[in-house]
Amino acid sequence: MVVKTVNVGLIGLGTIGTGVAKVLTEKRENLSAVAGYPLLLKKIADIDIKRPRPVKLDPSLLTTDAREILDNPDIAIVIELVGGENPARSYIADALKNGKSVVTANKEVIAKHGPELLGLAREHHTALRYEASVGGGIPLISPLQRDLAANTFSSIHAIINGTTNYILTKMSDEGLDFAVALKQAQELGYAEADPTNDVEGIDAAYKLAIMCTLAYHSVVRPADVYREGISRLTWKDFRYARELGYAIKLLAMGKSQDGALEARVHPVFIPENSLLAKVKGVFNAVQIHGDLVGDLILYGRGAGAEPTSSAVVADVIALAQSIGAGAGHLPAPLPDRKKNVKPISDIATRYYLRMNVADSPGVLAKISRVLGDHNISISAVIQKEVDLQAQRAEIVIMTHTAVEAAVQMARRELEKLDVVKEINNIIRVEG
Amino acid sequence: MVVKTVNVGLIGLGTIGTGVAKVLTEKRENLSAVAGYPLLLKKIADIDIKRPRPVKLDPSLLTTDAREILDNPDIAIVIELVGGENPARSYIADALKNGKSVVTANKEVIAKHGPELLGLAREHHTALRYEASVGGGIPLISPLQRDLAANTFSSIHAIINGTTNYILTKMSDEGLDFAVALKQAQELGYAEADPTNDVEGIDAAYKLAIMCTLAYHSVVRPADVYREGISRLTWKDFRYARELGYAIKLLAMGKSQDGALEARVHPVFIPENSLLAKVKGVFNAVQIHGDLVGDLILYGRGAGAEPTSSAVVADVIALAQSIGAGAGHLPAPLPDRKKNVKPISDIATRYYLRMNVADSPGVLAKISRVLGDHNISISAVIQKEVDLQAQRAEIVIMTHTAVEAAVQMARRELEKLDVVKEINNIIRVEG
Repeated sequence: MVVKTVNVGLIGLGTIGTGVAKVLTEKRENLSAVAGYPLLLKKIADIDIKRPRPVKLDPSLLTTDAREILDNPDIAIVIELVGGENPARSYIADALKNGKSVVTANKEVIAKHGPELLGLAREHHTALRYEASVGGGIPLISPLQRDLAANTFSSIHAIINGTTNYILTKMSDEGLDFAVALKQAQELGYAEADPTNDVEGIDAAYKLAIMCTLAYHSVVRPADVYREGISRLTWKDFRYARELGYAIKLLAMGKSQDGALEARVHPVFIPENSLLAKVKGVFNAVQIHGDLVGDLILYGRGAGAEPTSSAVVADVIALAQSIGAGAGHLPAPLPDRKKNVKPISDIATRYYLRMNVADSPGVLAKISRVLGDHNISISAVIQKEVDLQAQRAEIVIMTHTAVEAAVQMARRELEKLDVVKEINNIIRVEG
Repeated sequence: MVVKTVNVGLIGLGTIGTGVAKVLTEKRENLSAVAGYPLLLKKIADIDIKRPRPVKLDPSLLTTDAREILDNPDIAIVIELVGGENPARSYIADALKNGKSVVTANKEVIAKHGPELLGLAREHHTALRYEASVGGGIPLISPLQRDLAANTFSSIHAIINGTTNYILTKMSDEGLDFAVALKQAQELGYAEADPTNDVEGIDAAYKLAIMCTLAYHSVVRPADVYREGISRLTWKDFRYARELGYAIKLLAMGKSQDGALEARVHPVFIPENSLLAKVKGVFNAVQIHGDLVGDLILYGRGAGAEPTSSAVVADVIALAQSIGAGAGHLPAPLPDRKKNVKPISDIATRYYLRMNVADSPGVLAKISRVLGDHNISISAVIQKEVDLQAQRAEIVIMTHTAVEAAVQMARRELEKLDVVKEINNIIRVEG
């Protein structure tokens, strides 16, 4: 029996692309055995094919013209690892239109245009896989699509950005300030020169949108995700958190209740004895609650060339099996439910408030009155003198469940009280 | 377009079977939408169809004759939830021979006969899925087979038996003795009247054999797995473990190094700050190390009707998609490597030894000499007086890495020393 080779084209030879090229080249025999069909990396396109890279590649494989892959009738699978929205999006679309199967690690394109591209794949009887777009090597897309398909999901709690988790771990464990921890992360290559995408939760919002779309069968876009970054956290917040039995994490949260969704990325207090609180450094973890499976946690390396290659190449193997067997691709079910994402003002949760106040009698009474007027009840208070000479004190308040809109209104009123010098931070509490 | 209904037959209406019947019945519309093809639970066989069960089923679905399912040409998918080795094995084999796809949660049959049954599925161009056989609702089979397929694995560390983890958690957190904790587990329905399968590690060995066979592409049978149960652990071991910075867990471990495998289930000391040490109660967690993905942990409920239904029904959906699309089943690659499982005497690890000795000068010197003679070096010692009148002391020794055979030889020599009254426990240390 002659077994047809499945030819693969790779667009984008950056860090991840080089990792994937290395795996496809050096593990070729093993991968072909696992797939059951011979896999061949046939062509690689990048704008810079001169720069030396830590992988030995036959120069004849390289081209600066992506069309040599997109229009090559011998290539069955296109791997898009260019990153960013454009031209990556059009590479993926063109490949699908040419009947090729596509594998991508591109969270921005999938978060913004995933449903349309999946529709295109369906229309052209081909497939688009994107396991590597969320959580690096951690299987997440595939469990949501298939292994957990019998479940109705109610919540996702995810530490899904390694850069911010590294920074928060440093701030928590070593008492570092945000700026210092960020600088260390940059020196180690965990954070970019411009860290905005990570520290402002943009990257996490892309990944959350992708997971919510799958879990809740409803098209959730990055713009639907409420975002707050980690740059306003200080060592004081970590100290109070510890005192109160909490850790601080940047969580991406997607919830579904009574047909309404919540999708938000922001710092939260979580109980220090929860498993998510133990996720340190650049590691990622996603906790999913399904009606049948209960709480499930998937933990591992969420970024880096090797973990991401693990996911990309697994997608390639799966496609090669379908192509090799001539089995055709099973069309992925498209999101079919009407989207109903709550505005942040409608959510209800517990809160931590830290504020700088005058150290004079009756301060707490005035603050409590404002909170009470907005139906916000207090569960714990810590008051500390911080500056004897200036007669300043710091008050930390933990609330019972309250509505966000009420908390924001109370905040504005508190800021008007003459005894309140500054509201330093308000952090939501989860779990 | 007329879409053909995919008919499902269920054999075994015990706890799990009832859970699956409930999900297939009550969620039928949702599941059909996700699958893309209408699913119908057509027939249910059990030896007892009179007993009331917590699910409403049309009496015409029920039969006491499994042949009504196995020989029914309208049924495409057979779910085997009888449990135990026979007749479950022949039900599966007969269903496959009749060209039906099979889903099972039966760890014993898969561990003992999986490769043969998968061969039979391949021969008859059909499929056998068994996600629920390991780790309940936690996706494990599917990640090993597919999502992580690009990896070369080097280790599996698994808390894969909820009953024993519940007992160990009680012993550790509440200082209970084994017998008391076991009794509580039995009262809560977490342990069977005859707990042998769980507490002696037999159940964990089945699951480890299944995972090793997949991860290492080599047929590992339950008989290849070295086993020790948890019944010899006492509250003293937990107290010393805590003092030394460890937790005690029953781990199922499968390792691969230089072409040799280790497969063993026994209690181990693991660092108390490791994530596996935080896995409490009936929860399961599997830590897998792959060359690309690094350390990955999958955590969740490893047993119970609902989590197991989650896995069973996901397998049913996957099969329904292939059958509905007429796509044919991708044959699972069969294990192709020569098995080379090390005997336990060849493994090298660290050890905890607890012994009861005479409280007289030179005791530690005598013990150290015996250990030294067998190339076992000591990393920590705790000595405590336990009985002043009887002049008895307790010595706990932590060793550096040593070879098992040497440790067992040293044990026999130590037992001959007149100063050593009893060797209470020897526990291996991991991580």
